[in-house]
Amino acid sequence: MLLGRVAGTVVASRKEPLMEGWKLLVVRQLDTENHPGGGYVVAVDAVGAGVGEVVLYATGSSARQTEVTRDRPCDAVIMAIVDTWEVGGREVYHK
Amino acid sequence: MLLGRVAGTVVASRKEPLMEGWKLLVVRQLDTENHPGGGYVVAVDAVGAGVGEVVLYATGSSARQTEVTRDRPCDAVIMAIVDTWEVGGREVYHK
Amino acid sequence: MLLGRVAGTVVASRKEPLMEGWKLLVVRQLDTENHPGGGYVVAVDAVGAGVGEVVLYATGSSARQTEVTRDRPCDAVIMAIVDTWEVGGREVYHK
Amino acid sequence: MLLGRVAGTVVASRKEPLMEGWKLLVVRQLDTENHPGGGYVVAVDAVGAGVGEVVLYATGSSARQTEVTRDRPCDAVIMAIVDTWEVGGREVYHK
Amino acid sequence: MLLGRVAGTVVASRKEPLMEGWKLLVVRQLDTENHPGGGYVVAVDAVGAGVGEVVLYATGSSARQTEVTRDRPCDAVIMAIVDTWEVGGREVYHK
Repeated sequence: MLLGRVAGTVVASRKEPLMEGWKLLVVRQLDTENHPGGGYVVAVDAVGAGVGEVVLYATGSSARQTEVTRDRPCDAVIMAIVDTWEVGGREVYHK
Repeated sequence: MLLGRVAGTVVASRKEPLMEGWKLLVVRQLDTENHPGGGYVVAVDAVGAGVGEVVLYATGSSARQTEVTRDRPCDAVIMAIVDTWEVGGREVYHK
Repeated sequence: MLLGRVAGTVVASRKEPLMEGWKLLVVRQLDTENHPGGGYVVAVDAVGAGVGEVVLYATGSSARQTEVTRDRPCDAVIMAIVDTWEVGGREVYHK
Repeated sequence: MLLGRVAGTVVASRKEPLMEGWKLLVVRQLDTENHPGGGYVVAVDAVGAGVGEVVLYATGSSARQTEVTRDRPCDAVIMAIVDTWEVGGREVYHK
Repeated sequence: MLLGRVAGTVVASRKEPLMEGWKLLVVRQLDTENHPGGGYVVAVDAVGAGVGEVVLYATGSSARQTEVTRDRPCDAVIMAIVDTWEVGGREVYHK
């Protein structure tokens, strides 16, 4: 899993039917110091995340192991909203 | 998933039989600001996308979770045509 | 999938038994302008490709969805020989 | 698998229910000379690793092949605590 | 698959039980000209490879398709020892 910040939203009306009902969020990757890491994904929201929140996301086949994504064409899912993380005994982020 | 722009088409007559009937599109990756991201994939079209359109594509095993790609050797699929996306409350792209 | 050019061959006599009968080809990745992309894979040939030919290859679990690779330890397969591809309405490659 | 050092912890109370009970650790990748490799993952701990320890971690679908991660949305797991590793006949790391 | 050279060994006594019996080798990636490619993996040995040998390795879910790795948390496996490879009609490597 990787840490990311929800940066925005994507709207698509013409789509594969199995995507119906998904909220699609643009997630920018964060490094371990809470700086942007350069990459991004468009992830399905499985936990009710909002723009600006720091989240944990999974990619690949593991992204299909949640209730909203199982057996659907999803390769990235937001699976948790991060409360805090620590690196080297120091709190890097607190919600 | 990632955002991309359909840049072109690929034609291949000698191929694995399970690929029969696929439309193969060259998709250039976009970053979150709608600039080319440097990478590309050749993706199977599952939604009737055309050259120049902005799309959402999935890669890896998730690309086999659509009707046209299930149980076939596909590692990239165009699963939606993007209407709009927003980053930081600002509309970056409108179809 | 990605575009590549078959650059060479690999011979290995001591190997996992499930690899028996495979033709192993060195494939150099091409970018959308038919220039070397820097990367390569050793791929199983599923279509009778030869050195110098431009091919389409799949990676990851999708590489196991052909007749010669199913349920075998293959993470890259040549699945088609490319006839032509176009980018921006211009033919980049013609066999 | 890759070598990494456990750098910290992540706490998330609002999450996909299948994540319940996981210990989430920030793991910084190491290169073969025991220097930081630049990347990181947030991995599920399957072996009782602690901050500062050198570990082996798996990513992708293989990360779901342990008792604590099976059929759950996990794409990175700490599967071993490293005792020693050698490169070129020289011991690079000893616990 | 990728070409690599076995550079060393990893020992881990505290580990996921499904790893029992594996020989873990540090494999440095090679490019098509037999130069180090910069990356590495720790791979399970399925063919009796030794330090210094040039091998072919698979990653991802395909790494679980050998007898010693099936249904286990393995994301990289050495599946063959390379005898020779050729690029552009020239032999780059001979064992």
